[in-house]
Amino acid sequence: MSADEKLTYASAGVDIDAADDSKHRIKKLVESTFTAGARGAFGGFGGMFRVPEGAKKPLLVASADGVGTKIKTAIEADRHDTIGHCLVNHCVNDILVQGAKPLFFLDYVAFGKLIPSVVEGVVAGVSAGCRENGASLIGGETAEMPGVYTPPDYDLAGFIVGWVEEDQVITSAGVKDGDVLVGLGSTGLHTNGYSLARRIVAERLKLGPHDVFPEHGGKSVADVMLAVHRSYLPILGGALGRIHAMAHITGGGIPGNLDRALPSHCDAVVDTTSWEIPALFRVLEEAGQVDRAEMYRAFNMGVGMIVITDTAGASYIRDLASQAGVANWTIGHIRPGTGRVHLV
Amino acid sequence: MSADEKLTYASAGVDIDAADDSKHRIKKLVESTFTAGARGAFGGFGGMFRVPEGAKKPLLVASADGVGTKIKTAIEADRHDTIGHCLVNHCVNDILVQGAKPLFFLDYVAFGKLIPSVVEGVVAGVSAGCRENGASLIGGETAEMPGVYTPPDYDLAGFIVGWVEEDQVITSAGVKDGDVLVGLGSTGLHTNGYSLARRIVAERLKLGPHDVFPEHGGKSVADVMLAVHRSYLPILGGALGRIHAMAHITGGGIPGNLDRALPSHCDAVVDTTSWEIPALFRVLEEAGQVDRAEMYRAFNMGVGMIVITDTAGASYIRDLASQAGVANWTIGHIRPGTGRVHLV
Repeated sequence: MSADEKLTYASAGVDIDAADDSKHRIKKLVESTFTAGARGAFGGFGGMFRVPEGAKKPLLVASADGVGTKIKTAIEADRHDTIGHCLVNHCVNDILVQGAKPLFFLDYVAFGKLIPSVVEGVVAGVSAGCRENGASLIGGETAEMPGVYTPPDYDLAGFIVGWVEEDQVITSAGVKDGDVLVGLGSTGLHTNGYSLARRIVAERLKLGPHDVFPEHGGKSVADVMLAVHRSYLPILGGALGRIHAMAHITGGGIPGNLDRALPSHCDAVVDTTSWEIPALFRVLEEAGQVDRAEMYRAFNMGVGMIVITDTAGASYIRDLASQAGVANWTIGHIRPGTGRVHLV
Repeated sequence: MSADEKLTYASAGVDIDAADDSKHRIKKLVESTFTAGARGAFGGFGGMFRVPEGAKKPLLVASADGVGTKIKTAIEADRHDTIGHCLVNHCVNDILVQGAKPLFFLDYVAFGKLIPSVVEGVVAGVSAGCRENGASLIGGETAEMPGVYTPPDYDLAGFIVGWVEEDQVITSAGVKDGDVLVGLGSTGLHTNGYSLARRIVAERLKLGPHDVFPEHGGKSVADVMLAVHRSYLPILGGALGRIHAMAHITGGGIPGNLDRALPSHCDAVVDTTSWEIPALFRVLEEAGQVDRAEMYRAFNMGVGMIVITDTAGASYIRDLASQAGVANWTIGHIRPGTGRVHLV
């Protein structure tokens, strides 16, 4: 027998068993993300990063995530250069709600049989996300695991570390009666609800990845379903001091995420008529005959981030969003309560 | 249709769709790892960690890894509480070779169909590894991905962040002619070479996970194949100042890892007769009729870590290993060269 497998590769490294030009392109992609703090160890064991100079009492904030079954849509469409971007943006938003800004990112990609062009696509997406958000891609792991993944399937996970000054951490403590909720538009499903959405598209709409998606101006299913998860850092990064709390709308939807941004003495009231639910969700709801309440649990329904702030802050943040071309609405308010979310 | 999936769960969080007592046990396991720096956000969005106080110019060192197809052995043996420990120890060793000590850890576990008792086993192993190495388990993600993983299969990835003072980073720069190589014993395969080893055990030895493994005193295949990857931090953590360079022997074996610890003007000569190759590797070699050279590429052959140091340092480190009950040998030396490894 022979060790015909190559078990491990550093996705940010030199060990990928691929043609030299592919390796070279991957190296360039990784290096394109390096920021001032990066002490790159391309091909080394661990990536190194300098703690921000001038920070007083920095807290590191870390998060791990995957892209769920959005990856199946990418695999079926054979389009691999966007999910990495989704993954980074998802992770960025997850630490942003605590007031943290990204320092660096690492990825984990596992295949049944490694395909260098797919690795390159994935790293291209991850690198694009890192560049958008000022995160350095300082490491990663690419594994070939026959028997766990059936080719062409693979999985992708990511890990972000950011930082915030300890006295500037955003919690729910600043939320108070009379605050308003600002909703910021999503680009589509982001990275949640794909198992349900994919079933509806395949079994009810009976559409393949390259078919035209209804009511989307001729865009394909892949175009619509692989839209890149939006990062809200470019809009909100300069306004964190004006924000009382934030909720990144992921699995669980508005009711399952907004509650985490509430103190125990406040409720949030969300007026579901205050924004227009995008066509994507209407199509899925009708085709799948999904209960409206379940739609709000499974999907973001067009709102990818909710910011809780005072009236002046809401106006300021909505202006920032509008300047960035991102849909925004005042979608509700805070009232005395017990930490519950009401959709009305 | 209904969103019968729960797409995402925080493995260090409260969203696991399991019985309350299982949730409670998982929470206790996670909290058992918290060190002074942890600003736990159990159930929150991202885990928080304080940068070590008193550090002068701290560099963060990060690494991502999986356990390769060792996970298939765990799944087949239905024994899930050791691979998490392997994963942490692997990651700890990967940053230790740069002189870094752990701060915190996050995990990613992805299932076809989530089984709470398996999640609990995995978290138990991860927590044990974190406690052994002084790392706080501050977050994680547990995903249910029907269509990617076929039950009972799942995958596990981990991310570690440690730190080292910038002027104490270990590179290959200190390695010089006349240095010696100290080999520290592995506990078995650690986490590399499993695709080959599993094939040999299943197809040539025709053994299942609960059969007796040859030449191991009655231990089962699962006992031998799931032995926990050793962390070398407890032995080496207090002796880093005496170490010129280190190589964690993972995929690629001694030739594929020791070269990364060499400066371009030195070669390493490894005397392969200087330690006794453990029975495990002899059994695999004979049953699989694997070339000896390929054995050294696929497996650690009994040496999990190689430390490069001067003669006095070697004696010191070998004493530390012996006191910890870990096999150790002087396995070679450094001579002028071009950054190559010679097995003789």
